[in-house]
Amino acid sequence: MRIRNRALADKVVEAEEAAAMIEPGANIGMSGFTGAGYPKEVPGALAKRLAAEAAAGQPAKVSLWTGASTAPELDGVLAAADGIDLRMPYQSDPVSREKINSGAMDYTDIHLSHVAQRVWQGFFGELDVAVVEVSGITEDGRLVPSSSVGNNKTWIECADKVILEVNSWQSEHLEGMHDIYYGTALPPRRRPIPLTHPADRIGTPYLECPPEKVVAVVRTDSPDRNTVFTPPDDVSRAIAGHVLDFLDLEVAAGRLPRSLLPLQSGVGNVANAVLAGLREGPFEGLTAYTEVIQDGMLELIDSGKLLTASATAFSLSPAAVDRFNRDAAAYRDRIVLRPQEISNHPELVRRLGCLAMNGVVEADIHGNINSTHLMGSRMQNGIGGSGDFARNAYVSVFVTPSVAKGGAISAIVPMVSHVDHTEHDVDVIVTEQGLADLRGLSPRRRAELVIDKCAHPDFRPALRDYHERALRSSFGGHTPHLLAEALSWHQRYLDEGTMRR
Amino acid sequence: MRIRNRALADKVVEAEEAAAMIEPGANIGMSGFTGAGYPKEVPGALAKRLAAEAAAGQPAKVSLWTGASTAPELDGVLAAADGIDLRMPYQSDPVSREKINSGAMDYTDIHLSHVAQRVWQGFFGELDVAVVEVSGITEDGRLVPSSSVGNNKTWIECADKVILEVNSWQSEHLEGMHDIYYGTALPPRRRPIPLTHPADRIGTPYLECPPEKVVAVVRTDSPDRNTVFTPPDDVSRAIAGHVLDFLDLEVAAGRLPRSLLPLQSGVGNVANAVLAGLREGPFEGLTAYTEVIQDGMLELIDSGKLLTASATAFSLSPAAVDRFNRDAAAYRDRIVLRPQEISNHPELVRRLGCLAMNGVVEADIHGNINSTHLMGSRMQNGIGGSGDFARNAYVSVFVTPSVAKGGAISAIVPMVSHVDHTEHDVDVIVTEQGLADLRGLSPRRRAELVIDKCAHPDFRPALRDYHERALRSSFGGHTPHLLAEALSWHQRYLDEGTMRR
Repeated sequence: MRIRNRALADKVVEAEEAAAMIEPGANIGMSGFTGAGYPKEVPGALAKRLAAEAAAGQPAKVSLWTGASTAPELDGVLAAADGIDLRMPYQSDPVSREKINSGAMDYTDIHLSHVAQRVWQGFFGELDVAVVEVSGITEDGRLVPSSSVGNNKTWIECADKVILEVNSWQSEHLEGMHDIYYGTALPPRRRPIPLTHPADRIGTPYLECPPEKVVAVVRTDSPDRNTVFTPPDDVSRAIAGHVLDFLDLEVAAGRLPRSLLPLQSGVGNVANAVLAGLREGPFEGLTAYTEVIQDGMLELIDSGKLLTASATAFSLSPAAVDRFNRDAAAYRDRIVLRPQEISNHPELVRRLGCLAMNGVVEADIHGNINSTHLMGSRMQNGIGGSGDFARNAYVSVFVTPSVAKGGAISAIVPMVSHVDHTEHDVDVIVTEQGLADLRGLSPRRRAELVIDKCAHPDFRPALRDYHERALRSSFGGHTPHLLAEALSWHQRYLDEGTMRR
Repeated sequence: MRIRNRALADKVVEAEEAAAMIEPGANIGMSGFTGAGYPKEVPGALAKRLAAEAAAGQPAKVSLWTGASTAPELDGVLAAADGIDLRMPYQSDPVSREKINSGAMDYTDIHLSHVAQRVWQGFFGELDVAVVEVSGITEDGRLVPSSSVGNNKTWIECADKVILEVNSWQSEHLEGMHDIYYGTALPPRRRPIPLTHPADRIGTPYLECPPEKVVAVVRTDSPDRNTVFTPPDDVSRAIAGHVLDFLDLEVAAGRLPRSLLPLQSGVGNVANAVLAGLREGPFEGLTAYTEVIQDGMLELIDSGKLLTASATAFSLSPAAVDRFNRDAAAYRDRIVLRPQEISNHPELVRRLGCLAMNGVVEADIHGNINSTHLMGSRMQNGIGGSGDFARNAYVSVFVTPSVAKGGAISAIVPMVSHVDHTEHDVDVIVTEQGLADLRGLSPRRRAELVIDKCAHPDFRPALRDYHERALRSSFGGHTPHLLAEALSWHQRYLDEGTMRR
């Protein structure tokens, strides 16, 4: 029995009926974070309706706010229907990406920790509707969150009306795993957030929602967008090796405790390789304070090395989901899912002293990072939470293979074509070639290190040549640059399909 | 009687003798923040010694860490003696600037809130000596801080030996004005910082220092580097007018309380013009949580509109210093000086919801900000605390005249030549031409607004032309750019002395 509250059970309707309650032009807050916990049916019904209205000569769009990325059944269908006016704060959908880069859709790419306060603050306009997936409803009408929390607390609080999707595919054992903190406020009424350890529970396991706000409840039984796990390859294993050696050295130098500090890690190959390395490494009693629980995190819990993982969402492969669902009750003691304003909160990331590890699109020789734009103009996904963690981390590490597109693109360039993380926020850059510890170094020294340690050997001579000529001819010598040439590698790629000369 | 402790009075020596206790090659932490509270004599004596050793064929350097900028008697003399190896975290000295840009001196430009933890963490190496100006020493050996606090707590805690300068020029009434918080720690032992209002006092008025660490005490009687106040001109008054109109609108929209939120403001003309505007404006019961108390802040206190100002340093004109010294006892109830790890702490800036207002070197049409580098390569001063505030502020405003160098340079460019604050951290850009509220907008929309509202009319057509051609021909359409042209305005300035075509 997923819907244990009588009044809300009476509001069960089909998705089409729920979608009909959303006005064209509405601002909509939907659940969903990295393909977990997004509504599965109402978005599709809404997309159909918007497409039909457009076909009838009455085109209408909505503004779509989520936790982070979702799935084809949400971002994909609404983008394909040309139904989105403004999208925020993060997406990774191919259809949506095309619309953003063709100018058909506006996208505002903001720090994930900033979203809740920005919406609450009100300058995005009123939030008309919240569409939130939950895994159940209690007798007294409280909501059991689903496989992600994201901004759901904020959407439900701010929206005029709430549409719930109750997804019986989600494990019933999710109940009790979440920690929804209701203590945030707008200034001047903010108080310290009383969290000092990743395992701390400072809120309640349920989302609270006045029943009169709920205008519709839709039953679903559909899996999250779980992506198949790609095992680490040689490149990601090499990167992970450098990261683990670095952690070893930091512990040996007395700069990190033997249990390290709370880990924050992006998703994907390299992250999984690092987590696999930690499983076999010397560190015990680990914790994670991060955005997403991926396969490697679950395995690290299984190994006994990771005691607690705090996040805002799962991002698991189908195989890992099966394992999680079998043992959800046991994992409940090890995992806490929180709103993203808490999982990514600068106050907490700084206090806990996270070890941040994030991927990049490209890095430059002086240690600036581009996380979002291909060739300076084409939005890939978005900054997500990387800035929340990188700025406030105890050590901020960025990882990337040294080349892309079969070697045509160097991930290390003279000057990044877009900056998401400035030199001030980047401590360590790692590729399969090696690791550059940039802390405390001037840009000139950083350049030497990044070229020697991180660049692919095929691109090293050209980078050295650029740097040496810049040292001689740059206007200023603090961050030597030749402006007429600084972005020429990108231009060459656009003109010739390769950065190679 | 400035030195009321007998044991420390016995350690009084001349500056030369104190400087002789500093080993060549040492890492030195000195006091000083925006020309306030820096040691006045030991640095000069040290510079002479290093110059003499260099003349004798034994060149030696030291690494110099401070709060922020200091003065000719510190940064200037040591840079002129080629005595500095690594400088951090901020400087604004002309001699020092030349050495940094000629490659003679290494400079690492880091967020001011990060310095204390970075040094404590230990990867800058051991701190050998602290040289700290104080305004007095109590009977029991506690130190009465001077006109800035900066990183003095950290220097005294971390250094092997401490040299004190007791400056009798500083007002005796400074005693009781400071709030030194001793509750910070390295993770995993960090706890919430219990500050919820700019006026809160959470520490002690004194710096604590084990007397056995003090190897020398030097008496001085010298003024701070107080710079003459430049009255607001038409441009800064116009910028201030736009900022005040914006605040009015935010209050009217219910997004800011009538007493606003704690103000953070850089120094200089524009900041003083805004503060002057607030003095005559409709807002009452103001507070400030900022780095520096400048003339305008003092006048705002005098007017009764500003109830409390929290900062880490003064930065006053000679006239304002006289006024302050006459009434220091009264100002003590209105002003709190804190360590810069607290004045700039991301936890506190976010909690208080500061209204941040900082200057720029240049901004681009998409809202990225360059605060540090002329033409992408030449370091001017440094990022200082602007990132601490901009990232975590409730609203982050950047202000600048629309042109520089008599109109040869546009402060609004197609692409900034260096990024210190990314599009994700920039809410509002203001020039004398107008104000662009960029919150919630995609880069394409931002470009239209920045060009229309902020750019100088002389540069508007060329910016529009760039943006329109980029819309048509850019590789990606999210942040339209023509990479071969994006930095051409800077190159033209370097080649022809003007950005104008």
